[in-house]
Amino acid sequence: MKDDNSPAAKRPAPKSENLYSVQSRIGRQARAVQNGHAGGVLWLTGLSASGKSTLALALEQRLFERGYQTYVLDGDNVRQGLNSDLGFAPQDRNENIRRVGEVAALFADSGSIVITAFISPYRADRDLARAAAPGLFHEVHVDASLAACEERDPKGLYSRARRGEIPEFTGISAPYEEPTAPELVVKTENASVADSVEQLVEYVVERFAADTREPQAA
Amino acid sequence: MKDDNSPAAKRPAPKSENLYSVQSRIGRQARAVQNGHAGGVLWLTGLSASGKSTLALALEQRLFERGYQTYVLDGDNVRQGLNSDLGFAPQDRNENIRRVGEVAALFADSGSIVITAFISPYRADRDLARAAAPGLFHEVHVDASLAACEERDPKGLYSRARRGEIPEFTGISAPYEEPTAPELVVKTENASVADSVEQLVEYVVERFAADTREPQAA
Repeated sequence: MKDDNSPAAKRPAPKSENLYSVQSRIGRQARAVQNGHAGGVLWLTGLSASGKSTLALALEQRLFERGYQTYVLDGDNVRQGLNSDLGFAPQDRNENIRRVGEVAALFADSGSIVITAFISPYRADRDLARAAAPGLFHEVHVDASLAACEERDPKGLYSRARRGEIPEFTGISAPYEEPTAPELVVKTENASVADSVEQLVEYVVERFAADTREPQAA
Repeated sequence: MKDDNSPAAKRPAPKSENLYSVQSRIGRQARAVQNGHAGGVLWLTGLSASGKSTLALALEQRLFERGYQTYVLDGDNVRQGLNSDLGFAPQDRNENIRRVGEVAALFADSGSIVITAFISPYRADRDLARAAAPGLFHEVHVDASLAACEERDPKGLYSRARRGEIPEFTGISAPYEEPTAPELVVKTENASVADSVEQLVEYVVERFAADTREPQAA
């Protein structure tokens, strides 16, 4: 068992061999200086209908308007492409989140602020995503009570889950393991979308400021 | 059988359901205007030791210096993370390239010029990568003869393959299916790295110019 938020969460060693580094890559510091902000992962986790996708897309828009490099990974662009071979069986859900964590790490490495919007109900899965992007991972708990999410139910999923039509639905028939030490908690139950987005923007502006020292050699 | 470069190559339908678009995303045109260039995939394919990784990293450096958003996907950052569950069995190789194609498509959609450096010996696999990034995919054949690559053999892989120590080695014991209609051919056999990189830079500057029309609504 892994501790929540443990930086020691280990990714398995690669199966492949013959991996050689050919020449140096562009360093993160150099990218941050050029972009005017650091790269990183904003990992939004929370119940269905807690507001993850809405906040992710609104935050992306706000950051883009400020000139940030930013991109949202969510079910819409991941489930139909990279993870089209995965369903909703437990091991497929784990693999879904594992891959998203790894792709998010690549985006962060490229200098982008990548915003992920997945329920990601298990601490172990989120720990693995954190381990993929050491020092660049920001866990954001999009927090609303089950009752509030079930009342919103914009897609009718909770109703269907209550009727037994969706197996292993987080909060109903499968657990949601709340973050124990997230970098940020956004309480959406009694806040407007605008206020929640503002909270996120302020966090990003403060925490992703580019280091203004001279870029180090890549 | 798919035709090479067929835009009709189809990705399989996603296994998952309950996919809804929540709100609009930032459009590619808007991203291109902000970045000063379009996003896209530069898919480098060629034999081992043909020069893919060297050119990819050198091109990334050159584009970065010009202010482009750019990132290299290669074995170093993909095999140890996203594809750490994959080995070198044929089906694993296919899945390796499938995932790289999908991740490259996400980077291109985010506005970045992503440069991939994988042998990717099969036309069907490259067609699938092209289908993942419609209109954004540029196949680049990094072209050197097998004899030249085997003579370079910087990692000693050809020697090992000839001794039977590496099964299914492209060019020796497994086929390389040359691109039939690549967007660009870079002949590295008798060209300097600098000249080959220059050819690539010129291609990018010309082909990835941002459309200067007003950005459309996202």
